[in-house]
Amino acid sequence: MMSRQELIYTNDVAGAISELRKSAGSPPTWILTDENVHRCVCGTLGDSLGDVRYIVVPPGDVNKNLTTLAGIWERLQLDGATRRSMMVNLGGGVVTDMGGFAASTFKRGIRFINVPTTLLGAVDAAVGGKTGINFNGFKNEVGAFSEASAVVVSSCFFDTLPPEEVLSGYAEMLKHGLLAGKDQYDRLLAFDPVSGDREELLSLLRESVEVKRRIVAQDPCENGLRKALNLGHTAGHAFESLAFRRGKPLAHGYAVAWGCVVELVLSHMAKGFPSADLHKFAAYVAEHYGAFYIDCSDYPALLEFMRHDKKNESADINFTLLREVGKVEINCICGDDDIKVALDLYRDLMHI
Amino acid sequence: MMSRQELIYTNDVAGAISELRKSAGSPPTWILTDENVHRCVCGTLGDSLGDVRYIVVPPGDVNKNLTTLAGIWERLQLDGATRRSMMVNLGGGVVTDMGGFAASTFKRGIRFINVPTTLLGAVDAAVGGKTGINFNGFKNEVGAFSEASAVVVSSCFFDTLPPEEVLSGYAEMLKHGLLAGKDQYDRLLAFDPVSGDREELLSLLRESVEVKRRIVAQDPCENGLRKALNLGHTAGHAFESLAFRRGKPLAHGYAVAWGCVVELVLSHMAKGFPSADLHKFAAYVAEHYGAFYIDCSDYPALLEFMRHDKKNESADINFTLLREVGKVEINCICGDDDIKVALDLYRDLMHI
Repeated sequence: MMSRQELIYTNDVAGAISELRKSAGSPPTWILTDENVHRCVCGTLGDSLGDVRYIVVPPGDVNKNLTTLAGIWERLQLDGATRRSMMVNLGGGVVTDMGGFAASTFKRGIRFINVPTTLLGAVDAAVGGKTGINFNGFKNEVGAFSEASAVVVSSCFFDTLPPEEVLSGYAEMLKHGLLAGKDQYDRLLAFDPVSGDREELLSLLRESVEVKRRIVAQDPCENGLRKALNLGHTAGHAFESLAFRRGKPLAHGYAVAWGCVVELVLSHMAKGFPSADLHKFAAYVAEHYGAFYIDCSDYPALLEFMRHDKKNESADINFTLLREVGKVEINCICGDDDIKVALDLYRDLMHI
Repeated sequence: MMSRQELIYTNDVAGAISELRKSAGSPPTWILTDENVHRCVCGTLGDSLGDVRYIVVPPGDVNKNLTTLAGIWERLQLDGATRRSMMVNLGGGVVTDMGGFAASTFKRGIRFINVPTTLLGAVDAAVGGKTGINFNGFKNEVGAFSEASAVVVSSCFFDTLPPEEVLSGYAEMLKHGLLAGKDQYDRLLAFDPVSGDREELLSLLRESVEVKRRIVAQDPCENGLRKALNLGHTAGHAFESLAFRRGKPLAHGYAVAWGCVVELVLSHMAKGFPSADLHKFAAYVAEHYGAFYIDCSDYPALLEFMRHDKKNESADINFTLLREVGKVEINCICGDDDIKVALDLYRDLMHI
């Protein structure tokens, strides 16, 4: 895997898809998308795509499950898809994650390309080869490492995104900035993703996708270095799982923003991450994202979710932490007591 | 994948598993097996295996499905398996296929080793990296290419196998012989797998596994050459699917033996495979395997199953055929009418 993924920035999505199909020998093609994207986007795209079939799934992370996955396999089967067929995952992270897994397991794997329609999808899910579904209440518990043969990134989808969607994607960009270094990070913190200039957002996005691409290329199956990308995700996934259990699922990026606050607190406690940078980041998050409400009674569940995180390799809980912006340490073990202190401080910083 | 698979021939299975665990850093280990193997084998092995947990699934191809797979994922999850955990698939092809897929998708992939307990499993399923489950009535419709990190082959399991199980495995050995050439093939046709000497069977088995290993190493994901191994399987899988629909599942090897007869008929018709060799092979199969009953009314269903075979890349039906023993041609398209004639001749040769 990883070898020859094409990353295409364009405003002519239909043209890019047609080109990719042609260079693959014009295979029968299925477009996987969700009801929202289908309603909003496919009308415009549809005519120019030529002879394709649609598989439309219900939207949202709550539907990224085994039932929907089995439905996709069944549709491919009933429609007569073969190992030479192609799938185009047109949607947010739910569609690209689940579609990538469906494609890479149907008949032991058919070709697929990702066309992210959200900022989060473009910066995070569509690139990097992680595919999968939630299972039994745990996020991405079942899946595979399998690269899309191409990713088509277009700003044409972002114009109509609600502010929450833009912020959700921007959280992953902030995370990439924290990993990349002061320069990129400062530019991100100085920018307002909701009201800021779209061209500038797009140029920040390209930079951000490159951060991820560089890291993934060195460690496609997450044996080491790639865990850097996990910054904010051990705590963030636990917030997501808790919110899911409460029946009020979180946007992934929001969970990552709040998870980054928790993990920068841990970075401060364990690795001397500068206090001033911690407070500046927390203030940015509190201003743009608000807070995810937790109290002490949630701590046992949060610790349990962190222990179950798929990146966790033992009974200990493993974090990616920072010594400073741009200085990453992977495989940092933190004890339950330290994590509880960090959750306390998260609540202080978020004014909960 | 494919890079570093260990193939271990031994009579000390527990010792080999312990050694493999140790060299992997003694990870928490789950043994996946079925009820029959658990009853017959695990008592003897159990004590020497040390600290392992068992996942016991109901036996048979009919249980190689999404429900059983989800049960395996759930057990791993509830037992707290992590990405560093190890799975040992101890059983026949159903267990190694399904267990390999469960392991390679749980948390996007944990390490697994295969310990085939049947001749068919040893010669076919355990080596080569094909994993998966049946779906919606089609064989192996969902799965992945994922190599076991090691395969432990032991003759200690074969002593107690019923004759049908031995014959089922031997059919794949016959197929490997047809691919490899006259020498190996003649020795196989001269041997009676049920009453013949066990030591000789084992030495034929090693030879046969090497045929598969050589072919797979050159084309792990079945883009070309590996399709040679598909000899007998386009027709064979169709027989299996038909039998499954009739509610009387076939042993895989029997289906392959009969499938080889159909495809040697096609080889004779399309590629000039010698008539004498065809008749000799058909007589061996009729003597040892009997016949799978079909009549004309089954032809449409059989053609439909062949068209749906996952190796089939278009509306045409694709076969691996032989010009003579040891001379393989992949990607041979045969028309529906020729296939019907071949099915007629199969019935003649099998005295149906």
